[in-house]
Amino acid sequence: MDIKEKFGQRVKTLRKEKGMSQEELAEKSGLNRPYISAIEQGKRNVSLEVMEKLAEALQMDIKKFFE
Amino acid sequence: MDIKEKFGQRVKTLRKEKGMSQEELAEKSGLNRPYISAIEQGKRNVSLEVMEKLAEALQMDIKKFFE
Repeated sequence: MDIKEKFGQRVKTLRKEKGMSQEELAEKSGLNRPYISAIEQGKRNVSLEVMEKLAEALQMDIKKFFE
Repeated sequence: MDIKEKFGQRVKTLRKEKGMSQEELAEKSGLNRPYISAIEQGKRNVSLEVMEKLAEALQMDIKKFFE
């Protein structure tokens, strides 16, 4: 499993822990749903600025994605 | 300080803790020195794959960049 896949799985797990749908995470983060879906499938080489948007939407620190 | 600047400062701090020059970090990570310099100055929106290269070169977990 590469780093993009690992990251995607963490996003999915953390999103579900918050009881959020992909649609809700998209809305809160300002990203679109297909992009969230692609991230969770490990298909995107996510950048710092996108990580920050996801972390803010999930109300947690970026480091949680790497724990 | 934005997320790119915070990340850059952490890279610089962690590199120095390892007693490594930018040149050495560049060599170990497979990135070039001007790119390392731009990252440390907070000028790059670093991606997952670049973070992984930096973390491997510094022999640490990616999450350390966010602590």
